[in-house]
Amino acid sequence: MKVAIQGEPGSFHELAARHWFDDTIELVCCETFAGVFDALAKKQADAAVCAIENSLYGSINEVYDLLRKHRFPIIGEVHERIHQNLITLPGADLREITHVYSHPVALDQCRTFLEEHLPEAERIQYHDTAASVEYIKRLDDPRNAAIASMAAAELYELPVANTAIEDMSTNYTRFLVMKADATPVEGADKASLILKTDNTPGALYSALGILANSGINMTKLQSRPIIGQVWKYQFYLDVEAAGQKLHDCISEMMNLGCEVSILGEYKAAQASYED
Amino acid sequence: MKVAIQGEPGSFHELAARHWFDDTIELVCCETFAGVFDALAKKQADAAVCAIENSLYGSINEVYDLLRKHRFPIIGEVHERIHQNLITLPGADLREITHVYSHPVALDQCRTFLEEHLPEAERIQYHDTAASVEYIKRLDDPRNAAIASMAAAELYELPVANTAIEDMSTNYTRFLVMKADATPVEGADKASLILKTDNTPGALYSALGILANSGINMTKLQSRPIIGQVWKYQFYLDVEAAGQKLHDCISEMMNLGCEVSILGEYKAAQASYED
Repeated sequence: MKVAIQGEPGSFHELAARHWFDDTIELVCCETFAGVFDALAKKQADAAVCAIENSLYGSINEVYDLLRKHRFPIIGEVHERIHQNLITLPGADLREITHVYSHPVALDQCRTFLEEHLPEAERIQYHDTAASVEYIKRLDDPRNAAIASMAAAELYELPVANTAIEDMSTNYTRFLVMKADATPVEGADKASLILKTDNTPGALYSALGILANSGINMTKLQSRPIIGQVWKYQFYLDVEAAGQKLHDCISEMMNLGCEVSILGEYKAAQASYED
Repeated sequence: MKVAIQGEPGSFHELAARHWFDDTIELVCCETFAGVFDALAKKQADAAVCAIENSLYGSINEVYDLLRKHRFPIIGEVHERIHQNLITLPGADLREITHVYSHPVALDQCRTFLEEHLPEAERIQYHDTAASVEYIKRLDDPRNAAIASMAAAELYELPVANTAIEDMSTNYTRFLVMKADATPVEGADKASLILKTDNTPGALYSALGILANSGINMTKLQSRPIIGQVWKYQFYLDVEAAGQKLHDCISEMMNLGCEVSILGEYKAAQASYED
């Protein structure tokens, strides 16, 4: 099984992909999120694992837009606890570090650590956390450091100067699992939808009322602009429902004049979140 | 009057600031959005003008987080139509361009043009559109180009190779105007709120019902994570109401167990949007 991910070996995407599937999968590493969806479209991969939101950073808007564009069925979700680590060359002195490389989201998650311990070091945005470790190894200059997972430090055999340097310990990323050709998921209890209401006042409220009156809980509501319509929005909803009960609600919404499409029906991740 | 903006002279922020105030203002140019709020906090500026969303790119999440953190009163909004332009050195040949510099949002807005006309050129993220023009002028290498406003091209006296290169003509940015110490705005008809519901199912629906039942139209609903609570969200609402009618609704919401705070009551921008 070939699985497309954003990032390189040692990235959090690899961890999520191996947790969902297993260690026998072959990774198709893509530089960008758009590349992940392209790999699935071109049948270079059988499945894809893609981050959709982080509990500190929020939604990854680009991925929401790609979900809408490609409409690959979502077949599952994985939650990964994220620990960031400062990785250096062997024997490096923190006081001499001038450049810190990582993915912009990871740099953002470690803002407090960087301000306290490396206030003068320049933050350099890199397309992937693990790739930034490979890069500082290649540069072989002890003034460079990277922020990435333990797995990345082990893979590139570099020392970890500081562990768990993220601002908040409640740092989780949610990943979606997609397949180009998917059969319905047995035991689905969650769904991701796109909702477009007509432009009348209260239209969103009426649509949400159909879910509320059916006792369906909404776990996420994300707005994104409708391209070409200034200051008009469509909504991405995650709901704790699937199958007939959900489909009945969607029919009711469409009777109200809404456009609704299902991005996937799948099993909600079972997870507990520690502080 | 000193007005803090993100970016440099010639930026879209300068255009918005001069449209809201006038040509006599003194700009306090900040590299980052956080810097704009800091300038206001440290009384280095009397007011600030800050982009909050773009009709193609969507919300600028960092600015929503800064609004919550600083709570400077919003006293108005400005909508600017955005035209992006490819700016080069004099006599440059497009076929020789190897690097295109601009703000990541501007690069994103011109994706189609870049893919068609400069597929091989590297896109380099710069903190500001106008500053990227100043930078290519300083590098003085005709293989570099920048994407920015006409005003930036005029300011740095560089030629515009292609005008209006943005993907969609319906490209508008909405800016908020804030003051450190503000008096109530006369004739306010719009407000920006932060809403936190309790964690019961349907709590958001019930809160929105109070607005709908009062005939108050909601023009924007943006969710952001609550830091420290995994997969829980707070909501930023823009509503077409102010004064007593709004305050009555907020009291009702608080009776439901919601936390609500007002970021500002101001006059909605009067604007027409052409294709």
